Amino acid sequence: MVTSIDNVRGLTLAISSSAFIGSSFIIKKIGLKKAGDSGVLEVSHTCMSHYVILGEVANFAAYAFAPAVLVTPLGALSIIFSAVLAHFVLKEKLHMFGVVGCILCVVGSVGLVLHAPKEREIDSIDEIWHLATEPGFIVYSCVAVVSVLFLIFWVAERSGHRKMLVYIAICSTMGSLTVISVKAVAIALKLSFGGSNQFIYIQTWFFILNYLNKALDSFNTAVVSPVYYVMFTILTIFANMIMYKDSFSRNATQIATQLCGFVTIVAGTFLLHKTRDMGNEPPLPDDEICLDGGSVRPDRLSQSSS
Amino acid sequence: MVTSIDNVRGLTLAISSSAFIGSSFIIKKIGLKKAGDSGVLEVSHTCMSHYVILGEVANFAAYAFAPAVLVTPLGALSIIFSAVLAHFVLKEKLHMFGVVGCILCVVGSVGLVLHAPKEREIDSIDEIWHLATEPGFIVYSCVAVVSVLFLIFWVAERSGHRKMLVYIAICSTMGSLTVISVKAVAIALKLSFGGSNQFIYIQTWFFILNYLNKALDSFNTAVVSPVYYVMFTILTIFANMIMYKDSFSRNATQIATQLCGFVTIVAGTFLLHKTRDMGNEPPLPDDEICLDGGSVRPDRLSQSSS
Repeated sequence: MVTSIDNVRGLTLAISSSAFIGSSFIIKKIGLKKAGDSGVLEVSHTCMSHYVILGEVANFAAYAFAPAVLVTPLGALSIIFSAVLAHFVLKEKLHMFGVVGCILCVVGSVGLVLHAPKEREIDSIDEIWHLATEPGFIVYSCVAVVSVLFLIFWVAERSGHRKMLVYIAICSTMGSLTVISVKAVAIALKLSFGGSNQFIYIQTWFFILNYLNKALDSFNTAVVSPVYYVMFTILTIFANMIMYKDSFSRNATQIATQLCGFVTIVAGTFLLHKTRDMGNEPPLPDDEICLDGGSVRPDRLSQSSS
Repeated sequence: MVTSIDNVRGLTLAISSSAFIGSSFIIKKIGLKKAGDSGVLEVSHTCMSHYVILGEVANFAAYAFAPAVLVTPLGALSIIFSAVLAHFVLKEKLHMFGVVGCILCVVGSVGLVLHAPKEREIDSIDEIWHLATEPGFIVYSCVAVVSVLFLIFWVAERSGHRKMLVYIAICSTMGSLTVISVKAVAIALKLSFGGSNQFIYIQTWFFILNYLNKALDSFNTAVVSPVYYVMFTILTIFANMIMYKDSFSRNATQIATQLCGFVTIVAGTFLLHKTRDMGNEPPLPDDEICLDGGSVRPDRLSQSSS
């Protein structure tokens, strides 16, 4: 299945994205370590922002080529790049279980990639619009929005110390809808570059507006918190399955194998998350990466929620 | 692939085998805890032996139906049964990473099972004899035997504190040859029960002799030590691949997926092994399970080698 050239392109972009995001953590850390020299901190911060932006762009482009069930879970690879670079560049000691976590993320990703479905051929943004307005997806969107409103105005205030979990649920649910727009915009760009201008359609601008509105606060490749990673990935895959109906063309073996790959990645992420500061100096606040102008991003939640 | 009825039979037998072996650990532990009352200890020891024998029989039968690449790695499931039973029956606290280890063993096994090759149809023991005397397998056998002799007479004496590792290597290598005989005897029995008596052939008796000679000291389903598990499984699969050539009828995706499943199980085994006594009282010598009359069994190595 992976032999599809578009899947290979999407895969390469998704891995590059994780490499950039993973590196950005390290650059941030280097900056914080040398924080005495304020010039270094500023340079490192600028450099880190560039890496994050490159990572987001690569991730965005990946959605144009490969299905969400392939691109979204591979976001976990960023923590491998970050862990491996921390080991070699920052000479941080990686806990034995952290190494196992890295291996699991790789192994799970390989399983996922090998059994990724071939993406449905999309010829125009109108086709996506048509898919997004079918009853199934409209029901999902409504349920998602109502759930988020319920979480914001009813649950959040009453949840006390579990507030972080509620917040993650809100971000994940909105994120799963945003990815639909991200994918639509990415495909529109791909088709336009291919000679079939999609920006003449009002639908394209709807998706762009929706994307710009949400992208900065709920969509993010730098997945560090396992809870957020799991919620976001499951909801995103679920939303895409409903909309693109790509699950129905696949057999049970393939779906089960992908599920196994996903669970393996989750376990790996969990191990890395729980062990990353074992045997090292007190942790630096490496999770608080935030694009200039960005509002609350889920990766900022990871430390508090763990 | 798993839809083959024989694979399902083999799978059921392999899982039952692990359940029996896993339970036997628990019975041994219960006996040791109540060791003040010598009657209890004796009853528990007899009961445990029965479970181990049942486990070995189920494992033996599994080889008659399913390929070694499916049966051998599933031996790891015994530690899940043991860990889960210890949690519920003995009220032992399972470390969080131990739970992750269990999940990984299950997920890896599912991946392995889903992509198991269909077993080659064997109609007579003569066919197995023919496969075992082809050049490829004879070369493997010779290399294995020479390696073992080299390990015994040259390396073992000079290896000092790494002696355990050398011993595991010897057991694994001989074990990989034994499994071939185990499988041959199991298939001979299956064919004989099916009406085609195989015990009239001298080759059947050769395999039986070889099996009886080795079975008690180097072949074992109760895999607890990750190092032994990895070595034994890899060599067994390798030997079976050479002999039954079942790898050549499969595509790269399938092999890679099985490899991922195997690595996932190894990681799970490793986590369970490293964390099983965290937060509990000092470990009981639960690894020293040994059939009456059995010589050194690899599961006795696990504690010393870890």
